[in-house]
Amino acid sequence: MFHDLSRLVRADAAPPTSPAYDVRALRWLEHPGYLRARRLLEATDARTLDDQVALTAVPAPPFHESERGRVMAGMMRECGLEVSEPDAVGNVVGWFPESGAWTPGAAAPAPLVVSAHLDTVFPPGTRIEVEREGDLLRAPGIADDARGLTALLALTRAAREAALDFDSPLLVVATVGEEGAGDLRGVRHLFSPRGALRAGCAAFLSLDGAGIRRIVNVGLGSLRYRATVRGPGGHSWVDYGTPNPIHALARALDNLTRVPLPTVPSTTLSIGRWGGGTSVNAIPTEAWVEFEVRSEAEVELSRMDLEIRSILDRVSGSDPGGRGELVLTLDRLGRRPAGGTPAHHPVVESALAATRALGVSPELAISSTDANLPMSLGVPAITLGAGGDAGQAHTPGEWYRNVKGPDGIARALLTLLLLDGR
Amino acid sequence: MFHDLSRLVRADAAPPTSPAYDVRALRWLEHPGYLRARRLLEATDARTLDDQVALTAVPAPPFHESERGRVMAGMMRECGLEVSEPDAVGNVVGWFPESGAWTPGAAAPAPLVVSAHLDTVFPPGTRIEVEREGDLLRAPGIADDARGLTALLALTRAAREAALDFDSPLLVVATVGEEGAGDLRGVRHLFSPRGALRAGCAAFLSLDGAGIRRIVNVGLGSLRYRATVRGPGGHSWVDYGTPNPIHALARALDNLTRVPLPTVPSTTLSIGRWGGGTSVNAIPTEAWVEFEVRSEAEVELSRMDLEIRSILDRVSGSDPGGRGELVLTLDRLGRRPAGGTPAHHPVVESALAATRALGVSPELAISSTDANLPMSLGVPAITLGAGGDAGQAHTPGEWYRNVKGPDGIARALLTLLLLDGR
Repeated sequence: MFHDLSRLVRADAAPPTSPAYDVRALRWLEHPGYLRARRLLEATDARTLDDQVALTAVPAPPFHESERGRVMAGMMRECGLEVSEPDAVGNVVGWFPESGAWTPGAAAPAPLVVSAHLDTVFPPGTRIEVEREGDLLRAPGIADDARGLTALLALTRAAREAALDFDSPLLVVATVGEEGAGDLRGVRHLFSPRGALRAGCAAFLSLDGAGIRRIVNVGLGSLRYRATVRGPGGHSWVDYGTPNPIHALARALDNLTRVPLPTVPSTTLSIGRWGGGTSVNAIPTEAWVEFEVRSEAEVELSRMDLEIRSILDRVSGSDPGGRGELVLTLDRLGRRPAGGTPAHHPVVESALAATRALGVSPELAISSTDANLPMSLGVPAITLGAGGDAGQAHTPGEWYRNVKGPDGIARALLTLLLLDGR
Repeated sequence: MFHDLSRLVRADAAPPTSPAYDVRALRWLEHPGYLRARRLLEATDARTLDDQVALTAVPAPPFHESERGRVMAGMMRECGLEVSEPDAVGNVVGWFPESGAWTPGAAAPAPLVVSAHLDTVFPPGTRIEVEREGDLLRAPGIADDARGLTALLALTRAAREAALDFDSPLLVVATVGEEGAGDLRGVRHLFSPRGALRAGCAAFLSLDGAGIRRIVNVGLGSLRYRATVRGPGGHSWVDYGTPNPIHALARALDNLTRVPLPTVPSTTLSIGRWGGGTSVNAIPTEAWVEFEVRSEAEVELSRMDLEIRSILDRVSGSDPGGRGELVLTLDRLGRRPAGGTPAHHPVVESALAATRALGVSPELAISSTDANLPMSLGVPAITLGAGGDAGQAHTPGEWYRNVKGPDGIARALLTLLLLDGR
């Protein structure tokens, strides 16, 4: 998901205005097929919300997305998509039979991909009961990303019933593992040598959460680690001289926070949690810490990974005093590649023009979503909200308000039409 | 209690041999009254163990020693001691009616004091059931310090029945708050302006746990702290720049571990526990740490207290970035004064000679006991074991084996007789 927070809007990114894309977008607004598709989106808005509620009600905890994947695949087939069996990690891939011919793994013609993610952040057993008051829906995962999944279905139905056909193959994909520890494993698999997109794609458009203004064209990369330092421990006085894991880790962490970080590309290091030790008068046997690096640039992540390993490796030491040594374990909890799609790339231009055509002033944004992965591979990718407003994501109080819901889906559809080249 | 661990034996302290004290000690071995007292200790050994079991069975958690204090006061009266009401903190003070006349707070003649501590380390509700196999007793607190308390009773009975009278007033004291967070509050009160020993004493002899070899003549002082750093917290990326309590505390802790510590007098600093933070991708709102300084020398503790405050005060800061500031709270969890009684002081010489007279080779030791407080005030003080062997102190598996139990008590009695000046 991407958070609706000010730091996510790029200060340097006054969106470009490209008359050519705007002209084409405005022409589409009068196209009978697109007009009919928008009317259908409005007319079936209640059904779209019903779908959103139904999908939210199917639990999809991290690493347990298969049930929701099965339900989603059924709904995709009902919309008329060709849907293959879930892939090795659980992604569901469908495609428009009317669009350019495509089979999984085909190199050409390069497909357009629109996707959303199946997984939520909520653990198994989380109570999910959708509360509904008019156009306000409240439930864990109701927006992130049940809204995106629902938009895939509504977009497909509207495009097919309006007989909008595409020259490019058009793929509709539901991914696993977008959130947290999932570490983008769904989209990672799609672009891997055994994935459906192993031959790449023309553009990758992720629908994640609510909103109609933002266009994420920079993928914030991140590295997450857990470092654990273990030693023999002992009594604070009797065993003094025995290496102390907390002393060693405090030094390493202080050194970490002294590593210079560039502001352009924006890069951060934050220590989130630490723990260890059992008593004020004992040398601990263990100390641990979890920390994170984020950056707009892949090269900074790679540099920081080396810096981190170099600094922490110094903790594991020889044993000059004969009192035992400290042993470091460094686990990488996650690695999200950084990447970006330039503001003047046709994918971004198309989304900007589509947003403006619907009467909304667009904003370029930075976030961490499924689009990070294709961006890091040089595949043009963006992430859009799927209409409506939302808040309290990743909490049990998550809500979605259906304001301009159909317009959000119409924006994604128009972006795809512009990318299809006409 | 004092731990039976090698670092507690002072490497530089080959005990002095003073023929004069040894001659007097050997003369006492043939004294009819002392001979009779030793025979009584042997003859009533079973009763002494019964007392030890009975006292162990009365819970005395930290800050909840009053019930055991009441039971101990009754047993002290049964031995024929004059016993005053428990003082303001719960110490029980008794005195030999046959010894030099004394009333609480009296300045002269200066009394001899023999003491043990009422409190255990075990929290309320700890199951205490004494297991007995022959001369092996097993229960929480069975040695530390039920053995010391029991020795006070046996010593009193033997001395009175053997009609050993003392020129000096002889005080028998059961203290509260020796362990951990008790922070020596019992003995601290005794020597305070409202305590029974406000006018001082000629010598303070603490019986703590088991053993017959060690003589603690150096009181290891300690300082214990808990530092907590609080800040506004936030999202690791969106709120980057908000001060991070873990970053600040890691730097302060690293600085702390860089403060040079003398090896003579031996001084240590050990960080025992830390914690804080809730998520790898959040700036924590709080980080905390608990650490400890120990030293043989009071001046080093005072110096370190200043160093610690100076280093940690730098954590609390101004707010240059306008993103909120960090606030440090430094709580001192405990302060045990350091001190020592020189190896050639009559109190130590008497204990060394008494130990040798009983056929045991003495060792001078360093530990942290009730004796720290009088030592820090310049009052001659030592701590002795009360006979027997023991292990697993401060754990539910604590045990006491009654090997040379009566000799341990006879050693304390002989030390007092030598100190009484004859």
